Amino acid sequence: MTVSYTRKVSETTFCGLSRLLFRWRGSVFKLVWPDLVVYLVLYSICSLLYRFGLKEDQKRLFEKIAISCEYFRNVFPISFVLGFYVTIVVQRWWAQYMLIPWPDTACILASAYIQGQDERGRLLRKSFARYINLAFAVAFSRISPRVARRFATYQCYIDAGYMTQSERVIFEMMDEATRHHKIWLPLVWASMVVVRARKEGRVPDDYAQKAIIHEITNLRYNCGKLQEYNTMSVPLVYTQVVTMATYSYFGFSILGRQFLDPSQGYENHNIDFYIPIFTFLQFIFYMGWLKVAESLLNPFGDDDDDFETNDFLDRHFEVRRPEDGPSTGRKVLNTSAFQIPS
Amino acid sequence: MTVSYTRKVSETTFCGLSRLLFRWRGSVFKLVWPDLVVYLVLYSICSLLYRFGLKEDQKRLFEKIAISCEYFRNVFPISFVLGFYVTIVVQRWWAQYMLIPWPDTACILASAYIQGQDERGRLLRKSFARYINLAFAVAFSRISPRVARRFATYQCYIDAGYMTQSERVIFEMMDEATRHHKIWLPLVWASMVVVRARKEGRVPDDYAQKAIIHEITNLRYNCGKLQEYNTMSVPLVYTQVVTMATYSYFGFSILGRQFLDPSQGYENHNIDFYIPIFTFLQFIFYMGWLKVAESLLNPFGDDDDDFETNDFLDRHFEVRRPEDGPSTGRKVLNTSAFQIPS
Amino acid sequence: MTVSYTRKVSETTFCGLSRLLFRWRGSVFKLVWPDLVVYLVLYSICSLLYRFGLKEDQKRLFEKIAISCEYFRNVFPISFVLGFYVTIVVQRWWAQYMLIPWPDTACILASAYIQGQDERGRLLRKSFARYINLAFAVAFSRISPRVARRFATYQCYIDAGYMTQSERVIFEMMDEATRHHKIWLPLVWASMVVVRARKEGRVPDDYAQKAIIHEITNLRYNCGKLQEYNTMSVPLVYTQVVTMATYSYFGFSILGRQFLDPSQGYENHNIDFYIPIFTFLQFIFYMGWLKVAESLLNPFGDDDDDFETNDFLDRHFEVRRPEDGPSTGRKVLNTSAFQIPS
Amino acid sequence: MTVSYTRKVSETTFCGLSRLLFRWRGSVFKLVWPDLVVYLVLYSICSLLYRFGLKEDQKRLFEKIAISCEYFRNVFPISFVLGFYVTIVVQRWWAQYMLIPWPDTACILASAYIQGQDERGRLLRKSFARYINLAFAVAFSRISPRVARRFATYQCYIDAGYMTQSERVIFEMMDEATRHHKIWLPLVWASMVVVRARKEGRVPDDYAQKAIIHEITNLRYNCGKLQEYNTMSVPLVYTQVVTMATYSYFGFSILGRQFLDPSQGYENHNIDFYIPIFTFLQFIFYMGWLKVAESLLNPFGDDDDDFETNDFLDRHFEVRRPEDGPSTGRKVLNTSAFQIPS
Amino acid sequence: MTVSYTRKVSETTFCGLSRLLFRWRGSVFKLVWPDLVVYLVLYSICSLLYRFGLKEDQKRLFEKIAISCEYFRNVFPISFVLGFYVTIVVQRWWAQYMLIPWPDTACILASAYIQGQDERGRLLRKSFARYINLAFAVAFSRISPRVARRFATYQCYIDAGYMTQSERVIFEMMDEATRHHKIWLPLVWASMVVVRARKEGRVPDDYAQKAIIHEITNLRYNCGKLQEYNTMSVPLVYTQVVTMATYSYFGFSILGRQFLDPSQGYENHNIDFYIPIFTFLQFIFYMGWLKVAESLLNPFGDDDDDFETNDFLDRHFEVRRPEDGPSTGRKVLNTSAFQIPS
Repeated sequence: MTVSYTRKVSETTFCGLSRLLFRWRGSVFKLVWPDLVVYLVLYSICSLLYRFGLKEDQKRLFEKIAISCEYFRNVFPISFVLGFYVTIVVQRWWAQYMLIPWPDTACILASAYIQGQDERGRLLRKSFARYINLAFAVAFSRISPRVARRFATYQCYIDAGYMTQSERVIFEMMDEATRHHKIWLPLVWASMVVVRARKEGRVPDDYAQKAIIHEITNLRYNCGKLQEYNTMSVPLVYTQVVTMATYSYFGFSILGRQFLDPSQGYENHNIDFYIPIFTFLQFIFYMGWLKVAESLLNPFGDDDDDFETNDFLDRHFEVRRPEDGPSTGRKVLNTSAFQIPS
Repeated sequence: MTVSYTRKVSETTFCGLSRLLFRWRGSVFKLVWPDLVVYLVLYSICSLLYRFGLKEDQKRLFEKIAISCEYFRNVFPISFVLGFYVTIVVQRWWAQYMLIPWPDTACILASAYIQGQDERGRLLRKSFARYINLAFAVAFSRISPRVARRFATYQCYIDAGYMTQSERVIFEMMDEATRHHKIWLPLVWASMVVVRARKEGRVPDDYAQKAIIHEITNLRYNCGKLQEYNTMSVPLVYTQVVTMATYSYFGFSILGRQFLDPSQGYENHNIDFYIPIFTFLQFIFYMGWLKVAESLLNPFGDDDDDFETNDFLDRHFEVRRPEDGPSTGRKVLNTSAFQIPS
Repeated sequence: MTVSYTRKVSETTFCGLSRLLFRWRGSVFKLVWPDLVVYLVLYSICSLLYRFGLKEDQKRLFEKIAISCEYFRNVFPISFVLGFYVTIVVQRWWAQYMLIPWPDTACILASAYIQGQDERGRLLRKSFARYINLAFAVAFSRISPRVARRFATYQCYIDAGYMTQSERVIFEMMDEATRHHKIWLPLVWASMVVVRARKEGRVPDDYAQKAIIHEITNLRYNCGKLQEYNTMSVPLVYTQVVTMATYSYFGFSILGRQFLDPSQGYENHNIDFYIPIFTFLQFIFYMGWLKVAESLLNPFGDDDDDFETNDFLDRHFEVRRPEDGPSTGRKVLNTSAFQIPS
Repeated sequence: MTVSYTRKVSETTFCGLSRLLFRWRGSVFKLVWPDLVVYLVLYSICSLLYRFGLKEDQKRLFEKIAISCEYFRNVFPISFVLGFYVTIVVQRWWAQYMLIPWPDTACILASAYIQGQDERGRLLRKSFARYINLAFAVAFSRISPRVARRFATYQCYIDAGYMTQSERVIFEMMDEATRHHKIWLPLVWASMVVVRARKEGRVPDDYAQKAIIHEITNLRYNCGKLQEYNTMSVPLVYTQVVTMATYSYFGFSILGRQFLDPSQGYENHNIDFYIPIFTFLQFIFYMGWLKVAESLLNPFGDDDDDFETNDFLDRHFEVRRPEDGPSTGRKVLNTSAFQIPS
Repeated sequence: MTVSYTRKVSETTFCGLSRLLFRWRGSVFKLVWPDLVVYLVLYSICSLLYRFGLKEDQKRLFEKIAISCEYFRNVFPISFVLGFYVTIVVQRWWAQYMLIPWPDTACILASAYIQGQDERGRLLRKSFARYINLAFAVAFSRISPRVARRFATYQCYIDAGYMTQSERVIFEMMDEATRHHKIWLPLVWASMVVVRARKEGRVPDDYAQKAIIHEITNLRYNCGKLQEYNTMSVPLVYTQVVTMATYSYFGFSILGRQFLDPSQGYENHNIDFYIPIFTFLQFIFYMGWLKVAESLLNPFGDDDDDFETNDFLDRHFEVRRPEDGPSTGRKVLNTSAFQIPS
C-alpha cells in the first residue's frame, strides 16, 4: 500500500522531518531489519572470538587483518555509485507513476457524447466503460504480482464482472494464435462501440468520435509504455555492481570495524565502546539507501511503498459504472449531475 | 506567502547576493532557529559538564569519547546524500508549480465564443467561470491545508459564491456514492454549459466548442496531476535516511565538537575558542539545506515559501467574474475591452 | 547586453578556450573585481598586523587561530553545494530563454491569411502586429527593469507607437478594476481583429482563423510562464545557504590563509610567498562560480550576460511593421517578397 | 537477448538484490571475466617476480616504484568521471528504447478504417501491414548487426515475405540514384495504399485518412531519430578519456597494489595476504561500471542486454498479418474479435 | 566530419572500448597534442634548470616552492567543476543535434499532395523543394563557418542552384530594410507555392494544405531554435572559470610535479622517474575532458566531431530534387516509386 506523508510536512517546524522517523509501515527500519540482524550476529561472533577465543599472537594477526580490511574496503566509492544509481531508479519510478492510465477522461467523453437515455444507450456506455476497465486489468495483471494473483484465470475476470463468456472465448482463441499480450483487444472493442454508436446516430458528430478514439489511443500508449518499462529494467550489470559493492563493503566491515585493544595504540582505536553504534548507523544509512532503489525497481510489486494497483482497479471500476448502480446517489448522478443546475 | 526576490538580483553587484541575507520572512534563520537553540543548549550543557563537572580521569575518558565521535560521525557522506535528495525535491517542487492551472485561457475562450449580450448569455458565461473556479477550489482544498481550512464545509463554498444550494445537494449525494475526489464534477458541468450554448446557437461553430472543451480537459489534467503529486511523495525511506543521517551527524557533534583541553595536545585541538562558531555555522548550513527540502516537500503547505493557494483562488475569482461586477471598469471591460479600438 | 562567443570556438585549437579569457564585457573579472578588492584590502591589513603589529606571544596566538580557521572553514563542502545550486540556476535560465516569445509565426500567418491590399486590409494587419508587440512590451516591462524604465508610463507606450489614446483609457480603467497583470488584454484585441477579419470575409476559412488564434494562445502561454518564473525564484533558503557558506568560507580564509612564520615549522607553512596568489585564484574561481548563479538568477536584469530585452522589442517592432514603412525595401516586401518569384 | 529481472524484485526482502548476483546471462561476471583473467595473470607475474626473481636491492627499488604507482594512480578521479559518463550513456540508451516504433496503432487504425471484407479490401490491408513491417526491417538493418545479418540482401527480404520482386527492382534503382537510406520508401507506399483506399471509398472520411497518415509520420519520426542516435554517438573524445583513465588506473595498480614485504614497515603494508582480494573486487566494480557503458553505447548490438531486434520484427510480422493466417484463431480474429460481443 | 563509432561497439568484448583508442580522427590525442607539447617543453625547462642550473641553496628554495605549488593547486576541485560543466555542454550539444531540420516529411507531403504530372505541377514541386533547401542553407550559413565559407555571397547560392536572380534582388532589398536574419523569407515563399497550388486545384483538400503548412512551421521552429542556441551560449563566466581553473592547475603543476631530490626525504618524493608519466596522463585526461566541452560548445564548427553541415545540405539537395534528374533511376522514382506495386 502506498505510503503518503505529504500532509505531515505541510509546515516546516522544529524537528519537522524527524517526526517521520517514528513510523513502521514503509520505513527504513522495516526494510533493513532482517539484514541488520544478520549483520549484528556476524559482528558479535567475530567480536566474541577476538575478545575471548584467540591467543595473544592470534590477536595481533587478527588486528592486522582488521586494519587492512578497514583500509581496503574504502577502495570503491559506494556513496558515489549509490547516488547515481538511486537517481536513475527514482526517475524511472516517477515516470512509471506518471504513465498510469486514468479512465476518467474517456468515460466523461463517453457520457457526454454517447447519447440516449434508453436501454441501448445505457448498454453502449456500460460496455465502453467495461472494456476500458478490462484493458487496464489485463495490462496491470502483466506487471503487478498483486493483480496477477487476483486475476489468475479468465474466470476471475468474469466473476469480477470485467468480462463475458463470449469475450473469454475470443481471448482463449487469441492465446492460441499468439503468445503476445492482448491489451489492445478490449481497446479495439471499445473503439468498435464508438463506431457503432456513431452509425446509430448516437454520437453527434465526427469530432466527438475523434475525441473519444484519440483518448483510447492515449490509454493504449500508457499501457504499452508501462509494459516496456516492465520488460526493460535498469541494466542488470549496474544493479549487480551496486549490490556487490555495498554488500562487500559491509562484509569487510565485520572484521574492519571491530574495536581493537586500545592498549595496542592503533590509530583511531583509542577506546573500546563494545557496541559499535556508529557502524550500525552506517549500515542502516547505506543499506536503507540501497533499499530505496530495491523497493522502487519494481514499483508495481508487493512493497509497502509500491503503487496500489488493486485499489486503482477498484476505484476505476466503482466510479466508472454509473449506469449499473441501483443506489439513489448514482441515479442522481445520471439524471442531475450531468446537467447544468439552473 | 510566496517569497519573491527576483527583482533584488536584477544586477550583479558587489556583495550582491549577500544583501539577501538580511531578511526574516522565508529565510534560513527563521526555519533553523528552533533547532539551533536546542542544539546550543545541549552543546552548552556538555561543555559546562566537561569543564566544571568532571574529574581529571573522567575528562580523559570524555576526551577519548569526543575524539571517537568526531572521527566516526563522518562515516556517512551527508553532503552527498543531501545534494542528490534536494535536487529531486526541487525538481518535484517546480514541476508542481508549473502544473498549477490558470483559468485565463478558458475564460477568454468563453468570452470570445459564448456570444450574446442578453441576460441568458451573461448567465452562461457567469456559470462557466464559476464552475472552473469551483473545480480549482475543490482541487486545492484537497492538497493545501490553507484552502482546506477556508473551505471546511460545503456551506463555505456557498457563502463564498462558488456553489449553489442545488449543486451542494449533488455533491453530498456523490459523497455517499463514492469516497473519491469530485474535481471532475464541476468540469463536467462547465462542459455542459458549452454544449447547451452550442445547441442554443450561441457558440458559432464546432471548432469553438472543441477549443473550449479541449481547454477544460487541460485543466482537468493539471488538477489530476497535482493530486497524484500530493498522494505519492518522495519515498519515505529516502526521507528517513536523509533525516536520520543529518540529525545523527549533529547529535554526535555535540560531543565530538567540544573544545578539548589544548594542553593535552590532541590534534586540531590546540586552542579553546569557548564559542564553537564554526560548528554553529556548519549546523546552519546543513540544517538549512535539509530545511530547503522540508519546506519544498509539500509546496502547498503553510510555509513562508509555499505557493499562495488562497491568493491564487482570489485572483482567479476576482478577474474571472467580469459579468458580475458593478464597477464602471468592469462595464468597460465588457463593452470596450473586447472590441478593437478603431 | 548578451555576450555571444560561439563563433570564437568554432574550432578546437591550441589553447582555444584560453583566448576567451582576454575579454572584459561579461567576464568573470568584471563581476568579481569589487569583491576581490575588498578581500585584498582585508587580507593585507591582517597580514601587516601579523607581521609588524603583534608581539611574539600574540603572534603565537594568531598562528593558532589561523590554523584553526584554516582547518574548520572546510567543514562545509561549498564546491559540492555550488555545483548543485548552479546546475539548478542554469536550467532555469535556459528554460526562460526558450520561453521568450517570437512574433514571427503569428505575423507570417496574419500576412498570409488576413487578405486584401486595400486600406482596410492594411489597417487590420497593422493593428494585429501592433497588439502582439504591445503584449510583449507589457509582459517584458513586468520582468525586466530595463524595459520597465523605458515604458515607465502609458504615455511612453503611446510615444513609441505601441498604444493609442483610446487603448490607454481602457488600460487605466482596468488598472482600477484589478491589480493583476493585463498581458491578455492586447492578445484578446488581436484575436478580435482576426474574428472581425473573418466576418468581413478577409480570412479565407475556419482553419486559417484557428491557426492564428492557436498561435496567439501559444504567445500567451509563453508570456504567462515567464511571469511565473519571475514570481517564483529559486527558494530563498537555498540561495541564502549557498551565499552564506561561500562568504564565510572566504571570511575565515582571511585569517586562515595568512602565511605564517616558516621558522615555526607549521605544516604546509614552510615558505612565505607574501603574495597569496593561490588564495586569490581560489577566490576568483569560487566567487566567479557564485556570480554565474547570481547573474543568471534574474536573466532579464541589467547584467552584461542578461537577455537584451529592449533589443528584442526593437527587432520585433521593426520587422513586424511591414505596412508602415516608407522605404522602398518595405514596399518590395509587401509587393514582391510574399509572391512566388516566377 | 534482453535480460529482464523486474519480476524478481517485486518485493523487498532480506538480501533481496543479492539473489540477482547468481546469474550468468547479462551479468557483470560474464562481461568482465576476460579482462579479469588477463589482469590476474599480469598481477601474478609481477608478484612472482618480486617474491622470487629480484635481489634485495632490486626489491627496494621495486617497492619504491610500487609505492609511487599507488600514490600517483589516484590523480584522476575515475569514479567521478565514470559517474557522469555512465549517466549520459544510460539516458541515451533509454531514449533509444523509447523511440522503438510499434506498428500496433497503425494496424489497428487500418483494420478499423480500411473497410471491406472482399478480396480487394484484404489485399489493401495486407499490403499496408507489409509496408510498415518492411520499413521497420530496413530501419533496423541499418542499426542492428543482428538484423543486418538476417537481411543481408534484398533476396532475404523477399524470402521472408517482406518484399515483392517488383519492389526489389525499385529499391535497386533507388540504390543507384542515391546512397542515403530508403526507409521512407515503404512508408510512402503505405500512404499510397491509404490514398487509393480513400479514392475507392473504402476509407469512410477525411479524418480517418488523416489519422492513419499522421501515424505513419510518427513511425517515420521514430525510425529517423533512431538513425540519428546511431550516427552520432557519445563524443569519441569522452569515451576515450574514460577508457584510458580506467585502464591506466588498473595498469598502474598491477605494480602499486602488490603486497610489499611487511618487514620493511611501509605504511598500509603490514600484512601479506598473497591473494589481493580487495584489488580484484575493485577491478570488478570499476570495470563492471565501465562495461555498463560499453554494453549500452550500442543498444542494438549483440550483447546479452541489448534490444532483441529480431524478436521485435518477428512479433510485429506475426501479429500484424491477421489476413494471411489459415488458422482458426485468426479467422476468429477477423470475424469476431473486432466486433462488439453483444 | 562526424566521427561515428557505434558499429565498433556493437558487442561488449575483451578490451572492447580500448580498441577505440587507436584512432586519430576525432581523438583526444589529436585535440590535446599541441597543448601537451607546450606543457612538455615548459616542464623540461624547469626540470633541467632544477637539476643542472641551480646551486644547492637555490635547490632547497625551489623544492619548497614546488611543494607549496603541489599543495595549493588542489584548492579548487576542477574534476567536480568539469563534471558539471561538461554535462551542461553535452546536453546542449545533443539538443542542437535533435533540432537539425530534415526536409523529408515536407517533400513527401508535397509529392503526395501537390498533384499533376504536367510541366506546371513539376515546376511547383520543384520550387517548393528549392525554397525549403534555400531556407536551410541560409539558416546554416549563419551558424556554421563551413557553410558560411561555401555561401559567401548571394551569387554562391545562385551558382549552386538554390536561388534565382529575381529572388536575389528581393534578398538584397530586404538586407537594406533590416539587419535581422531572413530565414523566414524562403519559407513564406514555400507556403505561397502551396497556397497557389491549392487555388489551382492541385492540392486536393484543406487538410492537405494544412499538413504541409504545419510542417513548414515546424521547420521554421527548428531553424529559429538553432539560431537561439547559437546566439546564447553557455554563460561566458562559467566557461572562463572552468578554463582558468584547468590551466592554472596545470600551470602550477609544472613546478609542483617536478621530481625532487629523493635524498632530501620529502614525502612522496622517494624516487626519481625523470619522465613524469603520471603527470602527462593526468594532463591528457583533464585537458581531454575540457576539450570535450570545447569541441561541443559550437557543434556546427570546424572540428572533427562537429556536425557535417555541408553534407546535410548536399544530401537534402540531392534527394529532394526528384523532378530535375535526367537519370533513369529518378524517372523510375517519379513514375514507379510512389505507386503501389500491385
